[in-house]
Amino acid sequence: MTNQTDPLVLFMPSGKRGRFPKGTQVIDAARDLGVYVESVCGGRGICGRCQCEVQEGNFAKHGITSSNDHISPLGEKEKFYASKRELKEGRRLSCSASIEGDLVIDIPQELQINAQVVRKADDGRHIDRNPAIQMCYVEVEEPDMHKPLGDIDRLLQAITKEWGFEDIKIDFSLLQTVQKTLRKGKWKVTAAIHRESETARPHLIAIYPDLKNEAYGVACDIGSTTIALHLVSLLSGATIASSGTSNPQIRFGEDLMSRVSYVMMNPDGDKAMTNAVRESINELIGNVCKESKVSREDILDLVFVGNPVMHHLFLGIDPTELGGAPFALAVSGPIDTYASELDLQVNQGARLYMLPCIAGHVGADAAAVTLCEGPHRQDKQMLVVDVGTNAEIVLGNRKRTVAASSPTGPAFEGAEISCGQRAAPGAIERVRINPETLEPRVRVIGIEPWSNEDGFEALATKIGVTGLCGSAIIEVVAEMYLAGIITEDGVINGDLAQKSDRIIQEGRTFSYILWRGKQQLAITQNDVRAIQLAKAALYAGIKLLMDKLEISEVDSISFAGAFGTFIDPKYAMVLGLIPDCDLKKVKAVGNAAGYGAKMALLNQDYRREIEVVVTKIEKIETALEPDFQKHFVNAMAMPNKVEPFPKLATQVKLPPRQDPSNSAGVPKRRGGRSGGRRAR
Amino acid sequence: MTNQTDPLVLFMPSGKRGRFPKGTQVIDAARDLGVYVESVCGGRGICGRCQCEVQEGNFAKHGITSSNDHISPLGEKEKFYASKRELKEGRRLSCSASIEGDLVIDIPQELQINAQVVRKADDGRHIDRNPAIQMCYVEVEEPDMHKPLGDIDRLLQAITKEWGFEDIKIDFSLLQTVQKTLRKGKWKVTAAIHRESETARPHLIAIYPDLKNEAYGVACDIGSTTIALHLVSLLSGATIASSGTSNPQIRFGEDLMSRVSYVMMNPDGDKAMTNAVRESINELIGNVCKESKVSREDILDLVFVGNPVMHHLFLGIDPTELGGAPFALAVSGPIDTYASELDLQVNQGARLYMLPCIAGHVGADAAAVTLCEGPHRQDKQMLVVDVGTNAEIVLGNRKRTVAASSPTGPAFEGAEISCGQRAAPGAIERVRINPETLEPRVRVIGIEPWSNEDGFEALATKIGVTGLCGSAIIEVVAEMYLAGIITEDGVINGDLAQKSDRIIQEGRTFSYILWRGKQQLAITQNDVRAIQLAKAALYAGIKLLMDKLEISEVDSISFAGAFGTFIDPKYAMVLGLIPDCDLKKVKAVGNAAGYGAKMALLNQDYRREIEVVVTKIEKIETALEPDFQKHFVNAMAMPNKVEPFPKLATQVKLPPRQDPSNSAGVPKRRGGRSGGRRAR
Repeated sequence: MTNQTDPLVLFMPSGKRGRFPKGTQVIDAARDLGVYVESVCGGRGICGRCQCEVQEGNFAKHGITSSNDHISPLGEKEKFYASKRELKEGRRLSCSASIEGDLVIDIPQELQINAQVVRKADDGRHIDRNPAIQMCYVEVEEPDMHKPLGDIDRLLQAITKEWGFEDIKIDFSLLQTVQKTLRKGKWKVTAAIHRESETARPHLIAIYPDLKNEAYGVACDIGSTTIALHLVSLLSGATIASSGTSNPQIRFGEDLMSRVSYVMMNPDGDKAMTNAVRESINELIGNVCKESKVSREDILDLVFVGNPVMHHLFLGIDPTELGGAPFALAVSGPIDTYASELDLQVNQGARLYMLPCIAGHVGADAAAVTLCEGPHRQDKQMLVVDVGTNAEIVLGNRKRTVAASSPTGPAFEGAEISCGQRAAPGAIERVRINPETLEPRVRVIGIEPWSNEDGFEALATKIGVTGLCGSAIIEVVAEMYLAGIITEDGVINGDLAQKSDRIIQEGRTFSYILWRGKQQLAITQNDVRAIQLAKAALYAGIKLLMDKLEISEVDSISFAGAFGTFIDPKYAMVLGLIPDCDLKKVKAVGNAAGYGAKMALLNQDYRREIEVVVTKIEKIETALEPDFQKHFVNAMAMPNKVEPFPKLATQVKLPPRQDPSNSAGVPKRRGGRSGGRRAR
Repeated sequence: MTNQTDPLVLFMPSGKRGRFPKGTQVIDAARDLGVYVESVCGGRGICGRCQCEVQEGNFAKHGITSSNDHISPLGEKEKFYASKRELKEGRRLSCSASIEGDLVIDIPQELQINAQVVRKADDGRHIDRNPAIQMCYVEVEEPDMHKPLGDIDRLLQAITKEWGFEDIKIDFSLLQTVQKTLRKGKWKVTAAIHRESETARPHLIAIYPDLKNEAYGVACDIGSTTIALHLVSLLSGATIASSGTSNPQIRFGEDLMSRVSYVMMNPDGDKAMTNAVRESINELIGNVCKESKVSREDILDLVFVGNPVMHHLFLGIDPTELGGAPFALAVSGPIDTYASELDLQVNQGARLYMLPCIAGHVGADAAAVTLCEGPHRQDKQMLVVDVGTNAEIVLGNRKRTVAASSPTGPAFEGAEISCGQRAAPGAIERVRINPETLEPRVRVIGIEPWSNEDGFEALATKIGVTGLCGSAIIEVVAEMYLAGIITEDGVINGDLAQKSDRIIQEGRTFSYILWRGKQQLAITQNDVRAIQLAKAALYAGIKLLMDKLEISEVDSISFAGAFGTFIDPKYAMVLGLIPDCDLKKVKAVGNAAGYGAKMALLNQDYRREIEVVVTKIEKIETALEPDFQKHFVNAMAMPNKVEPFPKLATQVKLPPRQDPSNSAGVPKRRGGRSGGRRAR
């Protein structure tokens, strides 16, 4: 019903635009264009959630000159709101202001209404919001003997009338509290409505007296080693607080398979582990609530991801079947249930969503990484790698995506390396070897200068140099190869013992002395073999997927997880962990699993997206593929005997190694943070 | 796609018919016509639930000559079934037999498959079945590393493929057991699928290994005084066992309002009453399971009815709001939830349905009575009365139905009568007074002869004659009126003391000595007044509803509950409890509330029906109606001063009172059964 003389309205930052007749309310225009604008009070001008800003000026590119007389003057509702709470200069309420001419309107993306909430620095990416929970303020008719509908029935009628939800179902536990809540709020309440999907039957899951202008969610990644949990405002999208802890299941077994074995050997072992992980999560929820002064009662939605064994144990499912072929998952589809079913201490009606698993070895965490990076959303070939005890690998584009899990073992995490250790002060994290003298320089966590620079000695004496963390293990083997200490087939060249006293014989093989201090740190032939095996497994898995897609190179590589954050992609490429790729297109994406969980928390469209994507991803079981063994053997070489290896050595231009302080392009490790051991 | 030369098939007892091409399977023809045929195995010929019988002979009225060569010969599946279990002579499996010519096919209505189940005599009425739960036998694909769908996901796929249910949701608790169940059943399992409505999303609520050829439900009426519970086969419709008990809440208060007061005075008083009633129900479930050797685990659906206070307390809702105007129900709509939410010890996934309430004083029990009797299903004006401490009254037809609750008080139950008592051996249940001599004859519970017959004395000495139960109280007052002992305004006529020594003066009023024995039982002026008040309240309520409908007479009267079962409708009419009506159209309908619950248990269409009906019933709050008081005062007279009273006296033809053994038309009381005190 619009025509070309109607005002043109452009919404930022989405860039969506359309023409609307004069007098159209801004919120209606936004919703008409699919611009998400939060509103809790249903246009009564009391929640302030629908604030917008009119941009003034000439937006020639868009053919718009916007000015503040193109919008209706401040109305009664806005004046009332401004008198009760703060309405910043230039801010308007979308439910009150109407369009009177061409406009450029900015919808602030992370609007904080409640002052006590401390805004945490987020990772800068923006997630479009469409949460599964909607807060709906309503005014309910008082009981009337002539129309004896129940209190709940009148409440549901009001929600239907004012918010358009039809055939609402109410959670059983609310039956017991609804009468008190309605009377406490003097027949004004805020209802939390949840839908499992946009078309699903709406469920009333919580009721608060009067206007309830906040609602929170939790996004959590349950790793084998660590659990990371984030408290997120469902109304602003902001991450309010984060907390992490070691997975308490470690006491039942360091790695996944030893935990599965524990269950097989101990009746009710699974229950003990289930309780342990749920207790930890309850503690983490307590931490983030305390930090941000948010009540557990205000947490209404929770999204969890984890590898298949963590997924099963968290859900209370015996993981025994995952311990052997055919690695049958109890359930691979998404889980949509009540948090109370998992004994989580949040609002009684709070919902819980778990992303689907891709396969018996490729879990909901890999699904979340996939959702975050989105190989299925692009035309180019994207490789996504999440390295832990196993490496989950997803490769493809919008046409076709394949996934596998490759048994890298824990070497990349330093677990099978003679001088490996967790990333902690005193651990070597960077290594350079002079190919002429074979003398090394190292950088140590907690010590700013390199080992050949002023000030290092004093700090090293104080802190101690105790081992190599994951990133250094990759670097030292790569540098040894580049310096010629290791041959192409991975043998430490004993002939060099004549040239340098750092090459020493131990039995029938040789070692390289990386560090001589209080503790001597040597890289043994076994260490090199362990890295060779791990990198061969990873590369063979990747190569297998590339074969499936019939491609010989990838367009981009996303390294997820802590390991990816701290290793230098150049060295990963030198060693042949990853295939040939433009270095600029190799990026560390951090906790992509946790970020994927947050996406699913804030926007139910992402849930639908990943649910469809996992069914389309082709799962490759490395153990069943004859080529895997062949690729594995080839990849034992330094770098790899397979394509695109021959191209690699000439392509990788390492930065000049003369200036040790030149760390451009080398990710900085933050002191003391755990890295490189994020087993999953 | 059928034509007039195709065989004609008539299904009995439904009478549904249609033409089907030769070769059509009987089960497909039945379903096509909407004839409910159970099948658990999905046409594999192993459950035997779809048995039918071919009627042979000439059905001239229907133009059908049926013979056994009009149906396919016994097939392999049938032979196999007959070899494993019993297939009676003439019986066929609908999933195996196909139509080869005109047929009359009988679908046995209550097929018992499991021999250990004892069939209980039912009340003879037939309920068409369409339960909310369907048992679905499926064979599930084994796990395959190439297609790593979870076990549950493959199970759901199989159910979708074989049973047509789409987008099935699985109950959370099943995640933990599904893998063991699938393996125990060697990938053959029976899934119980529940839908809240025909169009609602199907939920998988239970899984049994292999073929599970039974499923049970519970129908329960929670009265203020007694709880009655029935175990019903969801697959055959048969009532397997019944059990009843006193409502344990009686210790918190005899009547409803004293229980509400208890809650108001005692914090957590509601929780104590909730626990008490739930425990009782768990015990009753234990009783019926034990009696019928059915496992609690096989109970999958439960339907409850009760008055508003019982409804709320059972659901765990504080009933305080029901204690005063505006008598706000927490919820009036239907409840559809899990039995586990109410701590009922049945299958973990079992569902629970509670019928909607009509109003704050007219509960789910009145809704069930309405569903059972169906005033809304007919053109004639039907009056349904359920008498307890309050009388619930529903009146109307398919065009318009009205309902009210009238405060009769407990006089009809004998509670305010000087010689009233519970129906038990020794209680007088029938009374006749000779209008000439004013001498009474009585019949006593537990004694077969009337008091003037041989053999009475001996038994009376042994058992004792201790009081009057509800039915006798009505009769004695009516007989006193008919004998002229009571005047039209309810005064015991003292002048008659000269004629009979049974009329005695007590203070300023007179009494009638009904019984002289060890205990003297007298009907006092106060007793007559109490009955007057109760009957006036009941009649005024009925009259109010008749006024609303602008009718002066009703076409039929259904008396629900124990009171209705044991009183003689003639006397109810003499006293003016109920309006003028053809006596043949006055019937006692027994526990219509329990029967309505059973209807809703066996056929979800009845749930939808009553959900719609209650919203259409007009609720009349007697306290708000100025005419109620007027009707009440008029109805204090014996019988009533209001229309249609003048017609009544001439219409009621009492049976000859000469022959005391002539009990034709008088409902027989079974010895010792509680009657006349079913307060609600």
